[in-house]
Amino acid sequence: MDVNKKYFNNISNRERALFEGAITMGALFHQFIGIPINLKSVESLEQSIKTAMELQPCINKVNVEINRNILKEIENEYDYISLTGEMLDVKVESNYSNGRAIIRLKYISELNYPLMYVEDIR
Amino acid sequence: MDVNKKYFNNISNRERALFEGAITMGALFHQFIGIPINLKSVESLEQSIKTAMELQPCINKVNVEINRNILKEIENEYDYISLTGEMLDVKVESNYSNGRAIIRLKYISELNYPLMYVEDIR
Amino acid sequence: MDVNKKYFNNISNRERALFEGAITMGALFHQFIGIPINLKSVESLEQSIKTAMELQPCINKVNVEINRNILKEIENEYDYISLTGEMLDVKVESNYSNGRAIIRLKYISELNYPLMYVEDIR
Amino acid sequence: MDVNKKYFNNISNRERALFEGAITMGALFHQFIGIPINLKSVESLEQSIKTAMELQPCINKVNVEINRNILKEIENEYDYISLTGEMLDVKVESNYSNGRAIIRLKYISELNYPLMYVEDIR
Repeated sequence: MDVNKKYFNNISNRERALFEGAITMGALFHQFIGIPINLKSVESLEQSIKTAMELQPCINKVNVEINRNILKEIENEYDYISLTGEMLDVKVESNYSNGRAIIRLKYISELNYPLMYVEDIR
Repeated sequence: MDVNKKYFNNISNRERALFEGAITMGALFHQFIGIPINLKSVESLEQSIKTAMELQPCINKVNVEINRNILKEIENEYDYISLTGEMLDVKVESNYSNGRAIIRLKYISELNYPLMYVEDIR
Repeated sequence: MDVNKKYFNNISNRERALFEGAITMGALFHQFIGIPINLKSVESLEQSIKTAMELQPCINKVNVEINRNILKEIENEYDYISLTGEMLDVKVESNYSNGRAIIRLKYISELNYPLMYVEDIR
Repeated sequence: MDVNKKYFNNISNRERALFEGAITMGALFHQFIGIPINLKSVESLEQSIKTAMELQPCINKVNVEINRNILKEIENEYDYISLTGEMLDVKVESNYSNGRAIIRLKYISELNYPLMYVEDIR
């Protein structure tokens, strides 16, 4: 069976890249939110999120930056916090044939919301 | 600030519907996989997934069906299992202005994979 | 095979109740954190968390209260937020034979931390 | 405030170690189940789970082994699968004062269930 012919012939290459990048961004957010994190573990977690999400279909590259400033300000008994959306700055680059999309997750303080949007597409 | 003008002027209405539907499908999968489930709890869980995911931007309607046949065959000491992708059949309908997309998640046995694809788009 | 004899003969009934209650509390937190939520969906989510977690071994009763005051103050474009630990007040009652434990999750503002502790045990 | 005096004076040191270890095991399972994984990413994921969960209160050491044999047998279009409980073999060692517990998660094929139990306690 040719999966692409059977299931994806109703969208363009550009739309396929958009579709797969958006799935991966939604997946990333809801898989990793809640993980215990502090300054000691942040690099290991960034790397592991990247490695896991690059396995998904059509995903070429994932960059994850977790906000160190928030981690520096942790003030509780236990010296870690749970990962939240406002700490994340993520880029997901997806490709399908000549289609390409870069999906971004970024906390927009004016919106008080971790926004997912399309940074670049062709 | 007009979010749509500022962040989404590079994609069409059809693409915006596709984008938001795909995010929600990826989110749904990775948020709910692993939940304890059996025949007694299945309806409550379906309803709650639907209600939660319909809150996301541009999502008009979510339908969730969890495979009862798999739940009927549970044979272990504790009478429940963890929700997996192969139990899920989900439709997410997203709208943005005159754009509309229906995203589907369905386990395809030939692929041995819970496939996300675009069932309808305009 | 008698699971209890084979795997749990090194702890008392009281300790078994404690063990299973603690597992369920850790599970609950990390399964549900991140779910989209607002005042319209809160009751459905509380019910569904309760129903799912009561399936786990030795769990007699789960009570979940999500802080409505935090939900009332949502001020963003999209009228929902992601569930966090500070919104949760949960009691898990576990029993094994004559052992019983009540595990509590509650946000302690002095600690700036959602604390899990043993409210009652015998 | 002395958290231990205020919230944990109703359990012994041994019970405290048991409590914290069990929470961490439940948390680990429900946080990481569903992550995309294959043979290329498995080591990074094991390390990252370990690093994250060792941040939790009273956790001294976490060992995570993901079953490579299951990963070798992946046969689908996309060359990865979602992490499930049956792939995991985990040890969590927790300490509180002179109390110590080792909690184990292991898939028991006779039970058809990923069992959490107490491997050692004192």
